[in-house]
Amino acid sequence: MMESPQRSLTPLAELARPTTIIEAPRLAKRLGVDLFLASETFQHTGSFKFRAAYSLASKVPNSLVITASSGNFGQALAHACSLLGKTSIIVMPTTSASVKVDAVREYGGQVEFVNVREKSRTERVQELARERPEAYVASAYDDALVIEGNSSLGSELAALHRPLACVVAPVGGGGLTSGIITGIRRVGKPIQVVGAEPAVANDAARSLRAGHIVRNDAEPETIADGARTLSLGEHNWAILRNGLEGIVEVPEESIAEATRLLFALANLKAEPTGALGVAALITRPEAFRDRAVCCVVSGGNVDLAVYSSILAGGARITA
Amino acid sequence: MMESPQRSLTPLAELARPTTIIEAPRLAKRLGVDLFLASETFQHTGSFKFRAAYSLASKVPNSLVITASSGNFGQALAHACSLLGKTSIIVMPTTSASVKVDAVREYGGQVEFVNVREKSRTERVQELARERPEAYVASAYDDALVIEGNSSLGSELAALHRPLACVVAPVGGGGLTSGIITGIRRVGKPIQVVGAEPAVANDAARSLRAGHIVRNDAEPETIADGARTLSLGEHNWAILRNGLEGIVEVPEESIAEATRLLFALANLKAEPTGALGVAALITRPEAFRDRAVCCVVSGGNVDLAVYSSILAGGARITA
Repeated sequence: MMESPQRSLTPLAELARPTTIIEAPRLAKRLGVDLFLASETFQHTGSFKFRAAYSLASKVPNSLVITASSGNFGQALAHACSLLGKTSIIVMPTTSASVKVDAVREYGGQVEFVNVREKSRTERVQELARERPEAYVASAYDDALVIEGNSSLGSELAALHRPLACVVAPVGGGGLTSGIITGIRRVGKPIQVVGAEPAVANDAARSLRAGHIVRNDAEPETIADGARTLSLGEHNWAILRNGLEGIVEVPEESIAEATRLLFALANLKAEPTGALGVAALITRPEAFRDRAVCCVVSGGNVDLAVYSSILAGGARITA
Repeated sequence: MMESPQRSLTPLAELARPTTIIEAPRLAKRLGVDLFLASETFQHTGSFKFRAAYSLASKVPNSLVITASSGNFGQALAHACSLLGKTSIIVMPTTSASVKVDAVREYGGQVEFVNVREKSRTERVQELARERPEAYVASAYDDALVIEGNSSLGSELAALHRPLACVVAPVGGGGLTSGIITGIRRVGKPIQVVGAEPAVANDAARSLRAGHIVRNDAEPETIADGARTLSLGEHNWAILRNGLEGIVEVPEESIAEATRLLFALANLKAEPTGALGVAALITRPEAFRDRAVCCVVSGGNVDLAVYSSILAGGARITA
């Protein structure tokens, strides 16, 4: 094997913005939990997904990366590829909100639309992959490089000079929690990780109970759009099956309430998925009493109309 | 003079949370300005006012501090006094929003109501001061200790390891800008400070033009409630008269637009007063081109109804 030429990539550890630690004493008092927040809402592209996307895009040799995402991973991958001088193709449903399409394009991604009534996103991605055999097809969560990228957040939290017994973070495909567990293990501190999952999208909780991956029949209708995944990824499951302390299954109304509490008591704009951790504390406060807890607020990208409706008291689902 | 007993006060520099630096490349691109944000929305009590309040409360010998404030200074002073084991009385109009009254009480302040149709806030404060001669009566801006406290933000910004030509910050009574100028001078870097003032409350801009303090006839009706002051303070004017590069007078609609842009492009919940700096960049972008600019977002405490109305496109004034 030839030696690779020296590449002058900026490592993720230098490029990712450190998570923003936010003290939230009023929120902590309201919840009755010793709490601080780790907000990824000010990360590049507004969510933790940049950690995964940059890790992946910088480590695969391909100069073209394709993914299907109408959400944060699409924006993150578009931006990561732009920074690396690579090309990204983001497959999005024709029904995607225009602000999301605009954001991907603003970050330099090429948007490929798919009419999901005629063809699934996966089919469209496979089609594109056949046309462009040089491309790497990226999963938003089920990839060792994604977990590696997200592990940087776990390492950051474990390295904080403050008491920390337990990290609570959203679970969708499992990329974030498996990454956090990996990062904490690397540092070697006895910090537990608890997943927060919408009750109407509780495939991960059911998987833990069953001892194998359980899949949702259809995309779950939760206000936490980042958790509308069909199942955990295989790579994630291998870590989560014995790496999680547990999963709290959160009612939709608690997700909306958590979003409002973050607004009112911590001045933090969170997307509903990002509020899942706080929603878990609302749902099962007794599980977190007398422990130093960090809630990861995973992202802040939420449409103005959706957010306004939540502030007005709604827990409606909006695409 | 007797030697004072050793007091074990925590200095402000250790207690205040460092300002939160937020990169906002999408906002910068939209405004066409090389920009980052210094957010005080995650400061103790949600605004920069804690710097002033703690500085003042920790340095006066009095164990009771009285102020008139229906806004951020009241909350900040209540919290600062609680931390210091002192008592605070916050005079608030009977018409104050209940969330503001609740916040002051939650932070440990005693609320004294005044019916402003019968008596001015100042009269009520003077009345209380006569009843409690041991009290220190605190101004929210016109006090050397307030400026000293706010100077900690200027020093922080000047000490950043990044290019910085110009800091843009809101002007109400002038406590924040005079503090920032003082802090920057202490560090000794050639960084300019520009004030951002609502056009309908432009007494500071008129003062600069006149060469002396000009007063508003009545409390100005601006959406930026932190800038509804009658005039600059004397202590502030002494610094601002030749310490500011200038003042941008900002239309109400630009304040609302800046609040929306901070939400949409920087994931930041700002109160309208906190968005004044970004509003100045919207109003006079040409004054900031090709300069490294820091916008200070001075606070994030905004009522849910007011904020929702702004997100929905309004620039209405709400008490």
